[in-house]
Amino acid sequence: MVSPADPARARDASASGTVGIIAGGGHLPLKVAEAARGSGRPVFIAGLEGWADPTIAAFPHDWVGVGSIGRLIRLLRQHGCREIVFVGSLVRPDLMRPDLRSLKLDFGAIRRMPSILKRGAGGDNRLLGRIVRLFEREGFQVLGAHELARDLVAPAGLIAGSAPGAKVRSEIRMGVETARRLGELDIGQGVIVAAGRVVAVEAAEGTDLMLERVASLRTSGRLRMRGRSGVLVKVPKPGQDLRIDMPAIGERTIEGAETAGLAGIAVEAGGVLIADRPALVSAAERAGLFVLGLPKPQ
Amino acid sequence: MVSPADPARARDASASGTVGIIAGGGHLPLKVAEAARGSGRPVFIAGLEGWADPTIAAFPHDWVGVGSIGRLIRLLRQHGCREIVFVGSLVRPDLMRPDLRSLKLDFGAIRRMPSILKRGAGGDNRLLGRIVRLFEREGFQVLGAHELARDLVAPAGLIAGSAPGAKVRSEIRMGVETARRLGELDIGQGVIVAAGRVVAVEAAEGTDLMLERVASLRTSGRLRMRGRSGVLVKVPKPGQDLRIDMPAIGERTIEGAETAGLAGIAVEAGGVLIADRPALVSAAERAGLFVLGLPKPQ
Repeated sequence: MVSPADPARARDASASGTVGIIAGGGHLPLKVAEAARGSGRPVFIAGLEGWADPTIAAFPHDWVGVGSIGRLIRLLRQHGCREIVFVGSLVRPDLMRPDLRSLKLDFGAIRRMPSILKRGAGGDNRLLGRIVRLFEREGFQVLGAHELARDLVAPAGLIAGSAPGAKVRSEIRMGVETARRLGELDIGQGVIVAAGRVVAVEAAEGTDLMLERVASLRTSGRLRMRGRSGVLVKVPKPGQDLRIDMPAIGERTIEGAETAGLAGIAVEAGGVLIADRPALVSAAERAGLFVLGLPKPQ
Repeated sequence: MVSPADPARARDASASGTVGIIAGGGHLPLKVAEAARGSGRPVFIAGLEGWADPTIAAFPHDWVGVGSIGRLIRLLRQHGCREIVFVGSLVRPDLMRPDLRSLKLDFGAIRRMPSILKRGAGGDNRLLGRIVRLFEREGFQVLGAHELARDLVAPAGLIAGSAPGAKVRSEIRMGVETARRLGELDIGQGVIVAAGRVVAVEAAEGTDLMLERVASLRTSGRLRMRGRSGVLVKVPKPGQDLRIDMPAIGERTIEGAETAGLAGIAVEAGGVLIADRPALVSAAERAGLFVLGLPKPQ
C-alpha cells in the first residue's frame, strides 16, 4: 500500500494496489485499464454516466454521475484504490455535432461540479489543479494516464509521414514558441501556423473547432495558402499538470488537419497522448500528413 | 508641398495639398473624406474595384483594381496627392456570408499583390509595414485615417451603456494584458474573457468570427456563462502601424457581442476606430451593452 504522504513512491513502477480509473468518453480509459492490467495491477473503473463507453464492463466497474463526487470517493475507497487516474473525454456527446466528438481529454466540464465552481473562476490549469487537490486532500494519489500507459505518449521523432522541409520546420518553431507563450497565459495548447504566420489560436473551443475554422477560412478565400501547407502545433502549457489535463491527438485530429489543408502536425514528445497510434499513423499516411514528436525544451 | 523626407511636417495639421484616399469597402472612406474636406483639404478617392462603395462618387474619384499598384500610383500623382490614406474593408463581400461583411480595416487582402507577396511571408504587421514602405519609397506620406478624422477614434471613458462592475473590470484587465502579450507575437488584436478566463483569441479569422464562435460555444453548452457576462477587448498590437491597420468596431461588433451574450466591449482609447459613433452607441444601448475606452498604457 502506498502512503498518500509519499508521492515519489506512488509513481514508482513497483507501486501496487488497485488503480481507480475515472473514465470519461472515448477509447482511452480502456487503453489505460489494459496497460495497467498488463503491468500486473488490478483495476477498478468508475464510469462517468453519459460519457464512459459501455465497454468498460470488461473490467470491474461501476457508474457515477459527473456531479457525484461523494459517491465517487466512496466507490474508489470500497475498491481499495489509493491511486487514481482521470482519463477520457467530457465533451457532452448529446450537445455536440458528430464531427466534434473529440477524444480530447476535457475534464473542463467538471466545472459543473458546484464544490469546484464555488472556489471561483480561472483558466483550465487553475481549475484542474483544484480538482487534483480535492482528491489529494481525500487521501488519493492522482496519477497521469501517461504514467500508467507509456505507449500512449507521443515519442520523439517522426511518427508518421515524411520529414517536413525547411519552410515547415520554421513554421513549427514559430508555432512552438507561440504555443508556449500562450500557455504561460493559461490559454490553449494549440496553434496553427501557415504562410509564415499564426493563423489560429486555440482557447475554449478546442483543437477540432480550430482546425475547422482554418478549413473554412481557406474555403472562403480569407486565408490564402498554397497547396498542402501549414502545421498544427500542440504542446502542454508550461507547468500544466499532465496528470489530469494532457493534450491528446487522434484520428479525428488527422481528419481535421487534412480538411484544413495542413502539411502535418507537431506535438511535444512525452507531453501529448495518442490514443491509438497505429490508427493515427495509418490515417496520417492515407492523408499524406506528417506527425512529428518534438523534443521537450531543455 | 510637404517633402517625403520630412515625415514630422507631413502630419502637421497645417499640411496642405490634395489627400489621396485609397478606399476599401464600408462607410469609413467617405467619413474620412468628409472630415478632410471639412478641415479645408481637397480630396481624391481611388476606389478599389469590388470593395469601395459607389457613394465615393460624391468626391473627385477614380477606380482601380486591387492588384494595380502601378495605375494607383499614377492616379495619385496625377491628382497631386503627396499624402495618402488607406481606409475601408478588403474582405471580399462575394466570398463572405452576409453576417461576416465586417467593416474591419482589413488590408490583409493586399497580400494578393504579387510584388508584396514576393518579399516573403509574415504576420500582418510585417506585411502591412511593407505596403507602407512601398508607397513611401514612391514618395508618398502615408497618414492614418485617425490623423485626418479624429472624431472617428474611440475616446477614453464610457462610450455607451453603464460602467461595468468589479468582476467585469477584472476581466477587462485580464483581456488587455493578454491582448498586448498576443500582440507582441503579431497575432490578433482581440480576445474574449468570460468566467474569469480567456475563452477566445483572435487570429486570422477576425473579430466577427471570434464572437460567433463564443456564441456557438455557449449554445452548445461547452462554455458556461451566467446571463450577460464576459467582455470583448480590442487593442492595437504594440508597435502596430495605426496608419494602415487600425482596429475598428462598429454596429456589427455590437450585434456579435450581443449574440455571444457578452456584457460589453472595451477598446484602447485613441487606438481603435469607430466608423459611426452615434449608430454604435444606440445599438449598444438597445442591446444593453457597455462600450468603454481604456486609457493607453503609460
